[in-house]
Amino acid sequence: MATSLLRVPPPQTLLRPLVVPERLLLGPGPSNVPHRIQAAGGRQLLGHMHPEVLQVMDEIKAGIQYAFQTQNQLTLAISGSGHCAMEAALFNLLECGDTILVAINGIWGQRAADIARRLEANVYELLKPPGEYFTPQDIEEGLVQHKPSVLFITHGESSTGVLQPLEGLGELCHRHGCLLLVDAVASLGGAPIFMDQQEIDVLYSGSQKVLNSPPGSAPISFSERAREKVLRRKTKPPSFYLDIGWLGNYWGCDGEPRRYHHTAPINSFFSLREGLAMLAETGLESSWERHQANCASLCQGLLSLGLELFVKEEKVRLPTITTVKVPEGYNWKDITGFLMDNHAMEIAGGLGPTVGKVLRIGLMGCNSTSENVNRVLRALRDALGSCHRSRL
Amino acid sequence: MATSLLRVPPPQTLLRPLVVPERLLLGPGPSNVPHRIQAAGGRQLLGHMHPEVLQVMDEIKAGIQYAFQTQNQLTLAISGSGHCAMEAALFNLLECGDTILVAINGIWGQRAADIARRLEANVYELLKPPGEYFTPQDIEEGLVQHKPSVLFITHGESSTGVLQPLEGLGELCHRHGCLLLVDAVASLGGAPIFMDQQEIDVLYSGSQKVLNSPPGSAPISFSERAREKVLRRKTKPPSFYLDIGWLGNYWGCDGEPRRYHHTAPINSFFSLREGLAMLAETGLESSWERHQANCASLCQGLLSLGLELFVKEEKVRLPTITTVKVPEGYNWKDITGFLMDNHAMEIAGGLGPTVGKVLRIGLMGCNSTSENVNRVLRALRDALGSCHRSRL
Repeated sequence: MATSLLRVPPPQTLLRPLVVPERLLLGPGPSNVPHRIQAAGGRQLLGHMHPEVLQVMDEIKAGIQYAFQTQNQLTLAISGSGHCAMEAALFNLLECGDTILVAINGIWGQRAADIARRLEANVYELLKPPGEYFTPQDIEEGLVQHKPSVLFITHGESSTGVLQPLEGLGELCHRHGCLLLVDAVASLGGAPIFMDQQEIDVLYSGSQKVLNSPPGSAPISFSERAREKVLRRKTKPPSFYLDIGWLGNYWGCDGEPRRYHHTAPINSFFSLREGLAMLAETGLESSWERHQANCASLCQGLLSLGLELFVKEEKVRLPTITTVKVPEGYNWKDITGFLMDNHAMEIAGGLGPTVGKVLRIGLMGCNSTSENVNRVLRALRDALGSCHRSRL
Repeated sequence: MATSLLRVPPPQTLLRPLVVPERLLLGPGPSNVPHRIQAAGGRQLLGHMHPEVLQVMDEIKAGIQYAFQTQNQLTLAISGSGHCAMEAALFNLLECGDTILVAINGIWGQRAADIARRLEANVYELLKPPGEYFTPQDIEEGLVQHKPSVLFITHGESSTGVLQPLEGLGELCHRHGCLLLVDAVASLGGAPIFMDQQEIDVLYSGSQKVLNSPPGSAPISFSERAREKVLRRKTKPPSFYLDIGWLGNYWGCDGEPRRYHHTAPINSFFSLREGLAMLAETGLESSWERHQANCASLCQGLLSLGLELFVKEEKVRLPTITTVKVPEGYNWKDITGFLMDNHAMEIAGGLGPTVGKVLRIGLMGCNSTSENVNRVLRALRDALGSCHRSRL
């Protein structure tokens, strides 16, 4: 064209090559992606209704059923990050005016409460200080007082490092006519969870922690009780993209011919499939044991460095993410910055209620190895010796 | 463990290797992914707050500003498919009781109206038969009659093959106190669009058509007018994941320090960045010309095969997706199935209001070549000669 109509020129920054350095990701996520999973994400794209893709989706579904230990038909992956799965759960379970009780002992309960309020649900909060967990007594008192139709609780509280015991909670909820919704984004594959035996009604997780797949897809499953609540809705969920009726059809969960719903993130599905396959090959119990052992060894090493663990009780320490108090006199940013600059290693500071208070070290999936335990301990020792320490 | 607690065994299907055949994707999307973009998606993952990732996000933002021809600060990519971007637009623009006028001449208007109803907006529909487009007079009558605060219209109607002329619509909307929301999922990069000059208030697209990146991220931009409407909201948007206030902060659009919002699909961003870079290298005008020329040549070839184009007026034919009537006596599934089985090539049937009526052929981004025009015409000639034709 002789005279260009363009007012915005091509950006110079886009004409330079993409830069992606190698880095050891030992923060609370994402974790490193093994070559096999990376390669799957880089495979050629197929159409969202091609038989090979529907087959991969069936395999993902079976892999999630294994990882969740459930036989729920309504099991699938959300086309979004773990946050998106949280919304999918709440969008489908709640209608305006429904009552939800949210167990809050860190950021994820806060987030769930925020979303539930956006949906104009009646939101009650059950509060514990960060670093603590809920007992069945705590839960029962909340159920009796507020009579919710849904209880939200976080299995792996990645902002505080707490592993919430789930035993008995499903039965308790059902005795009080309530559904149990569990966030297992940070814990799945790293700590035991049994969706069916523990009577969990909606369970979701993310792709990018123990499963070691890139963010962009998120496992979720609905029990028959939860599915019935969704079927009884008077109003449609606010989201079409996350409407579990449409999604369940696209994922072949309802016995009907599959219909186009949205153009799914096919390459993310390829990666998630491989992440689930690697977990199936390792075996859940072996994965749980490895995470437990490496977490214990990390905790021991941290104590040897003179550091103090944030979660007091050993039995409720999340095996995937360990929280340690920021050592006195140090600025946490100096320590995380030192590890990034000198060891190409990520560990993180706190999040939400733990900002400034803790450092968070993740050992998830392929990153949960004794070699990484040693690497991060060496790097921390180096940081403690090198970073500026203010006089107290 | 001596006695396993597992009730669901590892699925056998996951223990087999992933199968991803090569295929020429000439349907309405997704389109093929060039090696450079595939490779970017398979690069090592980084953290969602790492400086390299924030840099890539800045580059994506600049790339979208170029592709959209806008200088809007509030420009970013949604962490989801194109459908998710449609929801992001509607979730942020509409509150319960707001009035929206939806121009419907295919499936995307229907979809937008469905979502707007889920949000309890007052939804009015402006209807045209599939294959037709809206004139400024049509639009003005609707604006006068319904006094909406938002008009939704589809630039590239991929279910019908219509390219909606946008000239003058922005000014018209603004004269009537209304915002203009445009879906350019199927048209961006393949047909001229000038967000600022055409006074479009919210524009979104997808990654997987002309941009040739895998689905999983979606460009979107808000004008200052649109941003002000969002700022004036009385209620929060129903979604946290798609809350443009949070997203705008994470994308560095508000001048504030960037805060963690969600774990973004980093690898999808790497791919999208490369797709935008390739468009910037080609140049928009050159890309528009190529799509136009190959579409014209395809249309000519289809007519030579004795086929009838679905969109009568040449000037409103979408250069990225061509619709042709299912030839009399043939079952459309036989034709698409034949191309898939014998030519490893995808073309599609109709969608929504065009189901059973049309075949859809996409030539998008790297797939818009004269070689592909020839390949699909040869394949179609083969299909017409080989598929069963019922006697009339």
